[in-house]
Amino acid sequence: MNRSNSPETGFIDPSGANAEAIRDLTEDVLDQLLGQLGAAEKRSPLPDESTAPTGTIPESPRSQTDLLDDLETIAAGSMNPAHPGYIGHMDTMPTTVSVLGDLVASAVNNNMLSVEMSPVFSELEVQLTETIASEFGLGPNAGGVLASGGSLANLHALSVARNQAFDVHDDGLAGLDGEPVLFASDVAHTSLQKAAMLLGLGTDAVVAVETNANSRMKPSALNQAVEQAERDGRVPFCVVATAGTTTTGNIDPLPAVRDVVDEHDLWFHVDAAYGGALVFSEAERDRLDGIEGADSVTFNPQKWCYVAKTCAMALFADLDILQEDFRVGAPYMRGDDAIPNLGELSVQGTRRAEVLKLWLTFQHLGREGLGQLIDESYRLAAVIRDRVADQDALELASEPEMNIVCFRAAPDWCPPDERDALNGRLQRYLLSRQDVFVSLPTYRDTRWLRVVLLNPFTDKTTLDRLFDGIDLFLEAERP
Amino acid sequence: MNRSNSPETGFIDPSGANAEAIRDLTEDVLDQLLGQLGAAEKRSPLPDESTAPTGTIPESPRSQTDLLDDLETIAAGSMNPAHPGYIGHMDTMPTTVSVLGDLVASAVNNNMLSVEMSPVFSELEVQLTETIASEFGLGPNAGGVLASGGSLANLHALSVARNQAFDVHDDGLAGLDGEPVLFASDVAHTSLQKAAMLLGLGTDAVVAVETNANSRMKPSALNQAVEQAERDGRVPFCVVATAGTTTTGNIDPLPAVRDVVDEHDLWFHVDAAYGGALVFSEAERDRLDGIEGADSVTFNPQKWCYVAKTCAMALFADLDILQEDFRVGAPYMRGDDAIPNLGELSVQGTRRAEVLKLWLTFQHLGREGLGQLIDESYRLAAVIRDRVADQDALELASEPEMNIVCFRAAPDWCPPDERDALNGRLQRYLLSRQDVFVSLPTYRDTRWLRVVLLNPFTDKTTLDRLFDGIDLFLEAERP
Repeated sequence: MNRSNSPETGFIDPSGANAEAIRDLTEDVLDQLLGQLGAAEKRSPLPDESTAPTGTIPESPRSQTDLLDDLETIAAGSMNPAHPGYIGHMDTMPTTVSVLGDLVASAVNNNMLSVEMSPVFSELEVQLTETIASEFGLGPNAGGVLASGGSLANLHALSVARNQAFDVHDDGLAGLDGEPVLFASDVAHTSLQKAAMLLGLGTDAVVAVETNANSRMKPSALNQAVEQAERDGRVPFCVVATAGTTTTGNIDPLPAVRDVVDEHDLWFHVDAAYGGALVFSEAERDRLDGIEGADSVTFNPQKWCYVAKTCAMALFADLDILQEDFRVGAPYMRGDDAIPNLGELSVQGTRRAEVLKLWLTFQHLGREGLGQLIDESYRLAAVIRDRVADQDALELASEPEMNIVCFRAAPDWCPPDERDALNGRLQRYLLSRQDVFVSLPTYRDTRWLRVVLLNPFTDKTTLDRLFDGIDLFLEAERP
Repeated sequence: MNRSNSPETGFIDPSGANAEAIRDLTEDVLDQLLGQLGAAEKRSPLPDESTAPTGTIPESPRSQTDLLDDLETIAAGSMNPAHPGYIGHMDTMPTTVSVLGDLVASAVNNNMLSVEMSPVFSELEVQLTETIASEFGLGPNAGGVLASGGSLANLHALSVARNQAFDVHDDGLAGLDGEPVLFASDVAHTSLQKAAMLLGLGTDAVVAVETNANSRMKPSALNQAVEQAERDGRVPFCVVATAGTTTTGNIDPLPAVRDVVDEHDLWFHVDAAYGGALVFSEAERDRLDGIEGADSVTFNPQKWCYVAKTCAMALFADLDILQEDFRVGAPYMRGDDAIPNLGELSVQGTRRAEVLKLWLTFQHLGREGLGQLIDESYRLAAVIRDRVADQDALELASEPEMNIVCFRAAPDWCPPDERDALNGRLQRYLLSRQDVFVSLPTYRDTRWLRVVLLNPFTDKTTLDRLFDGIDLFLEAERP
């Protein structure tokens, strides 16, 4: 390469000519990065003020020293899910091998668009999605495709459900008799509305089904909603059950929901983006009973399987349906292999090999290791739940079913209409004084504190800091 | 962390307790990876037989030694775009800093869903997309959002175009009077059909506009197609011009297309997934003249900016339109910042910080370095084009406008109906005998050889191998 103005390390020379310079640069980046991650508990779980470098494009190359300085500032100002006090969102510290898997995937830069562009990775993705579909009991013809995030997996599943019900692949929805509608609980994820908007159904096509006090869909309400929609001349085609609601981590009663789905002959999608990981815990996997009846499942290993994001998938009980009701062919790709060109069967076209970090994580932790992480997070959740329940000034949003506990301060001395503000102040207090980050979602029109126990280094001392902080805060605020 | 069955290196301990073991593992992976990449020219550009490890989930953790062995096999069997003879697809060897940027992005595992989850990266993405939109001349209110691949960027742009034209965000398309249609050249990318299918328009809503002999849309044909659609009672709402067609790298005449668009008051989308990179070449950027009139632009730095995939973006001349015609809110996110929650404004929700590798690539190469890479690939393309034109037995598919040359062997001794097979054999011969990988797309119902000059280490000796191989092959096949 003789591009005079490019830095010597611009690309990794395939003849090894710049091996030493590449080695030096990568070592420098690695030293700095591992130094920061190995001291992650020393900075805040969430920096209160971050400065991004300017998003401009310099005329000439900048020095590697400058770039390393900037990289250090960037990492230091970022959300810090590696801190044991980061217990606020479904964002994990990633497994070591998933980070290394991403490094390798980027370096070899294969493309999941076609088998020719990713011979090993396409085969691995087909196999591993079959394995996981089988874990969920989806049957002998099941499999799926990875997606860069759960919103895309939900979009993929709902597009197939829509196409299968209405035969609109070629002709579209305009002029269709009757308005297609789908059903999901009133606390289901907003990616369903986004998918409905994108799919030309409109956000109003997602009918919100009533939930009980613990955020689980009421099957009787689902049945009524479907029948009401039919009476209104709308056309039900799909029900989405949630296994792991975003705010409180609850699971819809899958068998009872499925009974309603079957009665009305609808597509049954289970959004197990979060809760799907339970199949890897012997102790907890029966919470997913009923998922085996799904037509499609969304599952995000980027959450409770600790895989660096993004890593999600749409699984289908009958994988052939992708060929029949989804596929859009690409004439510039070779297509004569036993393994399909995955880009023709998924929402994305070009995709990175996200299967590698997922596969490595399974190999490195094993089912046992993953199960133990899940089980341990249940134990911590039980501790929090009990401490909240024991304290008069606190209330639970919902009875926990996973490693998520949503609660808030509701002391009798604070009027109900001032409690949102109180909990907002409490959240900031916990972060600034106790190095504990909990999130502050809106749930049933009220602000709550939400704990998501996804950091393997979070332990009882972290929980003590949390509850000590709550006590100190309430003591200070009490009139 | 006391999960007995997890390997010591499962996670990077935030207290530094396992720093040494982590260091050892990462060094081992890095040694192996850099060793393979620094000898990439010693293995085939595209392995003819690859073996994936089994996609199963072991009960117990496997040893790191085993995983390293598997990783070596995986990388060795993968598509090898680092080989200077890999000149077959729009898949690059990535810049060094984009690989390292992905490493850092995975390690810190931030989430572009919201500002709270990616304080630095969200700001950087907003700034850098503004900078790039400004490069295209999209005006003072322009900006955009990154997407994990160009198909998603096209989907994003077309969804906004659709929503803006028909007000279907909430209510959907069912019952709409008239069938919405969009227009693109007959060689435009199939992601437009996929987007139309997903958006509920149907693949038939993409009206194919005739192109000239060099694969460029005919503006007069566009005008006729729009008027014909109107006479047929269909409702035109959008025109997509392509800047860099997938197979031959041609550019629709943007100013003339825009005149037709303006006359009919349609949305103007430019799919510059490939060609957008030309803004960084002083010598070639005027080929994009007219793009400044676009309402939206797709641009993929994962192609000609050498950024590890995925890295793509949808840019909008009026960014506010995302708030008005696209946004789906998420109640579990904080939303009181100057920087928007990008997950509410893009097709994806959770997203990795792909902006980092893009920003690093710009900083490390500079505009000059990038421009020189682009210009050099033009010089090589001109050499190939001239050698094809000089040889009677070869013919060009289209006059090159970029670093893509599409041609085929068409010797007079080979009957026209046997030429597809001949070129198929020629492609395999070049790979197996000359270590040169060209792709074999179908274009205008015929098979062609396609050269995409994206490897910075490809030089005239590579091209000599290519043409020597063609000579040898034709000599051997001649009756």
